[in-house]
Amino acid sequence: MRVLGVDPGLTRCGLGVVEGAAGRKLTPIAYDVARTPAGDDIALRLLALEREIEQWIRTHKPDVVAVERVFAQHNVRTVMGTAQAAAVAITSAARAGLPVVLHTPSEVKAAVTGNGRADKPQVTAMVTRLLGLDTAPKPADTADALALAICHVWRGGMQQRLQEARMKVVSA
Amino acid sequence: MRVLGVDPGLTRCGLGVVEGAAGRKLTPIAYDVARTPAGDDIALRLLALEREIEQWIRTHKPDVVAVERVFAQHNVRTVMGTAQAAAVAITSAARAGLPVVLHTPSEVKAAVTGNGRADKPQVTAMVTRLLGLDTAPKPADTADALALAICHVWRGGMQQRLQEARMKVVSA
Repeated sequence: MRVLGVDPGLTRCGLGVVEGAAGRKLTPIAYDVARTPAGDDIALRLLALEREIEQWIRTHKPDVVAVERVFAQHNVRTVMGTAQAAAVAITSAARAGLPVVLHTPSEVKAAVTGNGRADKPQVTAMVTRLLGLDTAPKPADTADALALAICHVWRGGMQQRLQEARMKVVSA
Repeated sequence: MRVLGVDPGLTRCGLGVVEGAAGRKLTPIAYDVARTPAGDDIALRLLALEREIEQWIRTHKPDVVAVERVFAQHNVRTVMGTAQAAAVAITSAARAGLPVVLHTPSEVKAAVTGNGRADKPQVTAMVTRLLGLDTAPKPADTADALALAICHVWRGGMQQRLQEARMKVVSA
Protein backbone atom coordinates (compact mmCIF):
# COMPACT_ATOMS: atom_id res chain seq x y z
CA MET A 1 0.00 0.00 0.00
CA ARG A 2 1.34 3.43 -0.98
CA VAL A 3 0.06 6.33 1.11
CA LEU A 4 0.37 10.09 0.57
CA GLY A 5 0.21 11.81 3.95
CA VAL A 6 -0.78 15.49 4.03
CA ASP A 7 -0.19 17.73 7.05
CA PRO A 8 -2.37 20.61 5.85
CA GLY A 9 -1.26 24.23 6.04
CA LEU A 10 -1.26 27.31 3.84
CA THR A 11 2.20 28.61 4.71
CA ARG A 12 3.74 25.13 4.97
CA CYS A 13 1.90 21.98 3.87
CA GLY A 14 3.76 18.77 4.68
CA LEU A 15 3.68 16.03 2.02
CA GLY A 16 5.07 12.52 2.50
CA VAL A 17 4.70 9.29 0.54
CA VAL A 18 5.37 5.97 2.25
CA GLU A 19 5.04 2.45 0.90
CA GLY A 20 4.51 -0.53 3.15
CA ALA A 21 2.17 -3.00 4.76
CA ALA A 22 1.43 -3.82 8.40
CA GLY A 23 4.28 -5.91 9.81
CA ARG A 24 6.62 -5.26 6.86
CA LYS A 25 9.38 -2.77 6.19
CA LEU A 26 8.33 0.81 5.45
CA THR A 27 9.84 2.55 2.42
CA PRO A 28 10.01 6.35 2.16
CA ILE A 29 9.20 7.35 -1.43
CA ALA A 30 9.22 11.16 -1.26
CA TYR A 31 8.75 13.93 1.27
CA ASP A 32 8.83 17.69 1.18
CA VAL A 33 6.89 20.75 2.19
CA ALA A 34 4.75 22.85 -0.17
CA ARG A 35 4.90 26.54 0.66
CA THR A 36 2.71 29.44 -0.43
CA PRO A 37 3.67 33.09 0.26
CA ALA A 38 1.84 34.53 3.29
CA GLY A 39 1.40 37.86 1.45
CA ASP A 40 -0.39 36.31 -1.54
CA ASP A 41 -4.11 36.36 -2.13
CA ILE A 42 -5.92 33.37 -0.56
CA ALA A 43 -7.23 32.31 -4.00
CA LEU A 44 -3.71 32.15 -5.45
CA ARG A 45 -2.43 30.26 -2.40
CA LEU A 46 -5.17 27.61 -2.52
CA LEU A 47 -4.74 27.19 -6.28
CA ALA A 48 -0.93 26.84 -5.97
CA LEU A 49 -1.39 24.24 -3.23
CA GLU A 50 -3.92 22.34 -5.35
CA ARG A 51 -1.48 22.21 -8.28
CA GLU A 52 1.31 20.94 -6.02
CA ILE A 53 -0.84 18.19 -4.51
CA GLU A 54 -2.16 17.15 -7.94
CA GLN A 55 1.46 16.95 -9.12
CA TRP A 56 2.37 14.69 -6.18
CA ILE A 57 -0.61 12.42 -6.92
CA ARG A 58 0.39 12.14 -10.61
CA THR A 59 4.07 11.56 -9.84
CA HIS A 60 3.84 9.16 -6.89
CA LYS A 61 0.54 7.40 -7.64
CA PRO A 62 -0.59 6.75 -4.06
CA ASP A 63 -3.37 4.20 -3.38
CA VAL A 64 -4.85 6.40 -0.68
CA VAL A 65 -4.44 9.92 0.72
CA ALA A 66 -4.30 10.42 4.50
CA VAL A 67 -5.03 13.94 5.75
CA GLU A 68 -4.74 15.23 9.29
CA ARG A 69 -8.16 15.90 10.80
CA VAL A 70 -8.38 19.58 11.73
CA PHE A 71 -10.25 20.73 14.83
CA ALA A 72 -11.74 24.19 15.23
CA GLN A 73 -10.83 24.23 18.93
CA HIS A 74 -7.10 24.42 18.18
CA ASN A 75 -5.28 27.63 17.29
CA VAL A 76 -8.14 29.88 16.13
CA ARG A 77 -5.78 32.26 14.33
CA THR A 78 -4.46 29.67 11.87
CA VAL A 79 -7.31 27.15 11.85
CA MET A 80 -9.09 28.71 8.88
CA GLY A 81 -6.04 28.39 6.62
CA THR A 82 -5.44 24.86 7.85
CA ALA A 83 -9.06 23.85 7.23
CA GLN A 84 -8.96 25.36 3.74
CA ALA A 85 -5.65 23.66 2.88
CA ALA A 86 -7.16 20.36 4.10
CA ALA A 87 -10.21 20.96 1.87
CA VAL A 88 -7.90 21.41 -1.14
CA ALA A 89 -6.05 18.16 -0.33
CA ILE A 90 -9.28 16.20 0.23
CA THR A 91 -10.92 17.51 -2.96
CA SER A 92 -7.79 16.92 -5.08
CA ALA A 93 -7.62 13.30 -3.89
CA ALA A 94 -11.35 12.73 -4.47
CA ARG A 95 -11.11 14.30 -7.95
CA ALA A 96 -8.32 11.82 -8.76
CA GLY A 97 -10.62 8.97 -7.64
CA LEU A 98 -8.51 8.16 -4.57
CA PRO A 99 -9.91 7.22 -1.16
CA VAL A 100 -9.32 9.86 1.50
CA VAL A 101 -8.88 9.02 5.17
CA LEU A 102 -8.61 11.45 8.06
CA HIS A 103 -6.54 10.71 11.17
CA THR A 104 -6.42 12.85 14.30
CA PRO A 105 -3.05 14.13 15.55
CA SER A 106 -3.28 11.87 18.60
CA GLU A 107 -3.98 8.77 16.47
CA VAL A 108 -0.88 9.61 14.43
CA LYS A 109 1.31 10.21 17.50
CA ALA A 110 0.07 7.02 19.14
CA ALA A 111 0.72 5.03 15.96
CA VAL A 112 4.35 6.10 15.53
CA THR A 113 5.50 6.65 19.15
CA GLY A 114 3.02 4.62 21.22
CA ASN A 115 2.02 7.84 23.00
CA GLY A 116 -0.91 9.98 21.78
CA ARG A 117 0.60 13.00 23.52
CA ALA A 118 4.13 12.70 22.14
CA ASP A 119 5.88 15.98 21.26
CA LYS A 120 7.14 16.95 17.81
CA PRO A 121 10.82 15.94 18.35
CA GLN A 122 9.65 12.48 19.47
CA VAL A 123 7.46 12.07 16.37
CA THR A 124 10.31 13.24 14.11
CA ALA A 125 12.79 10.86 15.83
CA MET A 126 10.48 7.87 15.38
CA VAL A 127 9.68 8.74 11.75
CA THR A 128 13.41 8.99 11.03
CA ARG A 129 14.06 5.61 12.66
CA LEU A 130 11.03 3.80 11.18
CA LEU A 131 11.87 4.92 7.65
CA GLY A 132 15.63 4.29 8.08
CA LEU A 133 16.51 7.87 7.12
CA ASP A 134 20.04 9.21 7.63
CA THR A 135 18.81 12.65 8.69
CA ALA A 136 15.58 13.84 10.27
CA PRO A 137 13.05 15.17 7.75
CA LYS A 138 12.62 18.93 8.10
CA PRO A 139 10.62 21.03 8.73
CA ALA A 140 8.36 19.32 11.29
CA ASP A 141 5.43 19.48 8.83
CA THR A 142 7.27 17.04 6.56
CA ALA A 143 7.85 14.62 9.43
CA ASP A 144 4.17 14.97 10.39
CA ALA A 145 3.08 14.12 6.84
CA LEU A 146 5.30 11.00 6.87
CA ALA A 147 3.91 10.08 10.32
CA LEU A 148 0.38 10.32 8.91
CA ALA A 149 1.30 8.02 6.02
CA ILE A 150 2.91 5.50 8.42
CA CYS A 151 -0.12 5.70 10.70
CA HIS A 152 -2.36 4.83 7.80
CA VAL A 153 -0.20 1.98 6.54
CA TRP A 154 -0.38 0.44 10.01
CA ARG A 155 -3.97 1.23 10.94
CA GLY A 156 -5.23 0.41 7.44
CA GLY A 157 -3.34 -2.88 7.60
CA MET A 158 -4.69 -3.60 11.07
CA GLN A 159 -8.26 -2.89 9.96
CA GLN A 160 -7.71 -5.22 7.03
CA ARG A 161 -6.43 -8.03 9.27
CA LEU A 162 -9.35 -7.59 11.68
CA GLN A 163 -11.68 -7.77 8.70
CA GLU A 164 -9.97 -10.97 7.49
CA ALA A 165 -10.15 -12.43 11.01
CA ARG A 166 -13.87 -11.72 11.14
CA MET A 167 -14.34 -13.35 7.75
CA LYS A 168 -12.56 -16.50 9.02
CA VAL A 169 -14.80 -16.67 12.10
CA VAL A 170 -17.88 -16.29 9.91
CA SER A 171 -16.76 -18.91 7.40
CA ALA A 172 -15.47 -21.38 10.07
CA MET B 1 -20.63 43.43 -14.15
CA ARG B 2 -21.95 39.93 -13.47
CA VAL B 3 -21.23 38.57 -10.00
CA LEU B 4 -21.64 35.06 -8.60
CA GLY B 5 -22.21 35.30 -4.85
CA VAL B 6 -21.44 32.23 -2.72
CA ASP B 7 -22.71 31.81 0.84
CA PRO B 8 -20.50 28.83 1.71
CA GLY B 9 -21.81 25.77 3.52
CA LEU B 10 -21.56 22.00 3.24
CA THR B 11 -25.19 21.15 3.98
CA ARG B 12 -26.56 24.19 2.14
CA CYS B 13 -24.39 26.42 -0.06
CA GLY B 14 -26.21 29.51 -1.36
CA LEU B 15 -25.48 30.52 -4.97
CA GLY B 16 -26.74 33.69 -6.63
CA VAL B 17 -25.84 35.50 -9.85
CA VAL B 18 -26.65 39.19 -10.25
CA GLU B 19 -25.88 41.54 -13.09
CA GLY B 20 -25.65 45.27 -12.63
CA ALA B 21 -23.52 48.33 -12.09
CA ALA B 22 -23.48 50.93 -9.31
CA GLY B 23 -26.41 53.31 -9.75
CA ARG B 24 -28.17 51.11 -12.32
CA LYS B 25 -30.90 48.50 -12.12
CA LEU B 26 -29.90 45.09 -10.73
CA THR B 27 -30.91 41.97 -12.66
CA PRO B 28 -31.21 38.57 -10.98
CA ILE B 29 -29.79 35.92 -13.34
CA ALA B 30 -30.03 32.73 -11.25
CA TYR B 31 -30.20 31.66 -7.62
CA ASP B 32 -30.47 28.38 -5.80
CA VAL B 33 -28.90 26.38 -3.04
CA ALA B 34 -26.46 23.48 -3.54
CA ARG B 35 -26.96 20.72 -0.99
CA THR B 36 -24.75 17.79 -0.01
CA PRO B 37 -26.02 14.96 2.23
CA ALA B 38 -24.88 15.35 5.86
CA GLY B 39 -24.28 11.58 6.10
CA ASP B 40 -21.88 11.48 3.14
CA ASP B 41 -18.11 11.33 3.36
CA ILE B 42 -16.48 14.79 3.50
CA ALA B 43 -14.50 14.03 0.32
CA LEU B 44 -17.67 13.24 -1.64
CA ARG B 45 -19.40 16.34 -0.28
CA LEU B 46 -16.56 18.70 -1.23
CA LEU B 47 -16.25 17.13 -4.68
CA ALA B 48 -20.03 17.40 -5.30
CA LEU B 49 -19.96 21.05 -4.25
CA GLU B 50 -16.97 21.73 -6.51
CA ARG B 51 -18.82 20.23 -9.50
CA GLU B 52 -21.92 22.32 -8.77
CA ILE B 53 -19.94 25.56 -8.51
CA GLU B 54 -17.95 24.77 -11.67
CA GLN B 55 -21.28 24.16 -13.45
CA TRP B 56 -22.59 27.56 -12.30
CA ILE B 57 -19.43 29.27 -13.53
CA ARG B 58 -19.69 27.58 -16.94
CA THR B 59 -23.41 28.30 -17.28
CA HIS B 60 -23.61 31.87 -15.99
CA LYS B 61 -20.13 33.17 -16.91
CA PRO B 62 -19.67 35.62 -14.01
CA ASP B 63 -16.93 38.29 -14.21
CA VAL B 64 -16.09 37.86 -10.54
CA VAL B 65 -16.94 35.51 -7.65
CA ALA B 66 -17.82 37.01 -4.25
CA VAL B 67 -17.52 34.65 -1.27
CA GLU B 68 -18.54 35.33 2.32
CA ARG B 69 -15.52 35.71 4.56
CA VAL B 70 -15.64 33.03 7.26
CA PHE B 71 -14.46 33.72 10.78
CA ALA B 72 -13.26 31.03 13.17
CA GLN B 73 -14.84 32.84 16.10
CA HIS B 74 -18.36 32.09 14.86
CA ASN B 75 -20.16 28.80 15.43
CA VAL B 76 -17.26 26.42 16.14
CA ARG B 77 -19.38 23.35 15.43
CA THR B 78 -20.04 24.25 11.78
CA VAL B 79 -17.11 26.56 11.01
CA MET B 80 -14.89 23.78 9.63
CA GLY B 81 -17.45 22.74 7.01
CA THR B 82 -18.09 26.38 6.14
CA ALA B 83 -14.37 27.10 5.78
CA GLN B 84 -13.90 24.01 3.60
CA ALA B 85 -16.88 24.88 1.39
CA ALA B 86 -15.47 28.41 1.02
CA ALA B 87 -12.10 26.92 0.02
CA VAL B 88 -13.80 24.88 -2.71
CA ALA B 89 -15.61 27.99 -4.04
CA ILE B 90 -12.45 30.12 -3.95
CA THR B 91 -10.31 27.46 -5.64
CA SER B 92 -12.94 26.72 -8.33
CA ALA B 93 -13.15 30.43 -9.21
CA ALA B 94 -9.35 30.81 -9.28
CA ARG B 95 -9.02 27.69 -11.44
CA ALA B 96 -11.48 29.26 -13.91
CA GLY B 97 -9.28 32.39 -14.00
CA LEU B 98 -11.88 34.55 -12.22
CA PRO B 99 -11.08 37.16 -9.58
CA VAL B 100 -12.30 36.23 -6.10
CA VAL B 101 -13.38 38.80 -3.53
CA LEU B 102 -14.31 38.17 0.09
CA HIS B 103 -16.89 40.28 1.93
CA THR B 104 -17.70 40.02 5.62
CA PRO B 105 -21.31 39.38 6.69
CA SER B 106 -21.54 42.89 8.14
CA GLU B 107 -20.29 44.50 4.90
CA VAL B 108 -22.99 42.59 3.04
CA LYS B 109 -25.74 43.52 5.52
CA ALA B 110 -24.67 47.17 5.50
CA ALA B 111 -24.62 47.21 1.68
CA VAL B 112 -28.15 45.89 1.18
CA THR B 113 -29.97 47.19 4.29
CA GLY B 114 -27.83 50.12 5.46
CA ASN B 115 -27.34 48.32 8.78
CA GLY B 116 -24.36 46.01 9.40
CA ARG B 117 -26.33 44.22 12.12
CA ALA B 118 -29.52 43.61 10.14
CA ASP B 119 -31.24 40.26 10.74
CA LYS B 120 -31.89 37.59 8.10
CA PRO B 121 -35.54 38.55 7.35
CA GLN B 122 -34.42 42.15 6.76
CA VAL B 123 -31.67 41.03 4.35
CA THR B 124 -34.10 38.74 2.51
CA ALA B 125 -36.72 41.52 2.28
CA MET B 126 -34.22 43.98 0.80
CA VAL B 127 -32.79 41.42 -1.65
CA THR B 128 -36.34 40.65 -2.83
CA ARG B 129 -37.12 44.34 -3.30
CA LEU B 130 -33.77 45.30 -4.90
CA LEU B 131 -33.99 42.49 -7.44
CA GLY B 132 -37.70 43.06 -8.13
CA LEU B 133 -38.59 39.45 -7.27
CA ASP B 134 -42.22 38.37 -6.84
CA THR B 135 -41.40 36.04 -3.96
CA ALA B 136 -38.58 35.98 -1.41
CA PRO B 137 -35.68 33.69 -2.38
CA LYS B 138 -35.53 30.66 -0.08
CA PRO B 139 -33.79 29.27 1.89
CA ALA B 140 -31.98 32.16 3.60
CA ASP B 141 -28.64 30.91 2.18
CA THR B 142 -29.90 31.77 -1.32
CA ALA B 143 -30.88 35.30 -0.25
CA ASP B 144 -27.46 35.66 1.42
CA ALA B 145 -25.68 34.65 -1.79
CA LEU B 146 -27.69 37.22 -3.76
CA ALA B 147 -26.94 39.85 -1.08
CA LEU B 148 -23.22 39.09 -1.48
CA ALA B 149 -23.46 39.56 -5.25
CA ILE B 150 -25.38 42.86 -4.83
CA CYS B 151 -22.83 44.01 -2.24
CA HIS B 152 -20.03 43.38 -4.69
CA VAL B 153 -21.79 45.08 -7.61
CA TRP B 154 -22.18 48.19 -5.45
CA ARG B 155 -18.89 48.15 -3.59
CA GLY B 156 -16.98 47.16 -6.72
CA GLY B 157 -18.71 50.00 -8.57
CA MET B 158 -18.04 52.43 -5.74
CA GLN B 159 -14.37 51.46 -5.65
CA GLN B 160 -14.24 51.98 -9.39
CA ARG B 161 -15.82 55.46 -9.16
CA LEU B 162 -13.44 56.46 -6.35
CA GLN B 163 -10.57 55.28 -8.52
CA GLU B 164 -11.88 57.33 -11.45
CA ALA B 165 -12.35 60.40 -9.19
CA ARG B 166 -8.75 60.09 -8.01
CA MET B 167 -7.58 59.84 -11.62
CA LYS B 168 -9.46 63.08 -12.46
CA VAL B 169 -7.86 64.89 -9.50
CA VAL B 170 -4.45 63.67 -10.57
CA SER B 171 -4.95 64.63 -14.22
CA ALA B 172 -6.64 68.01 -13.45
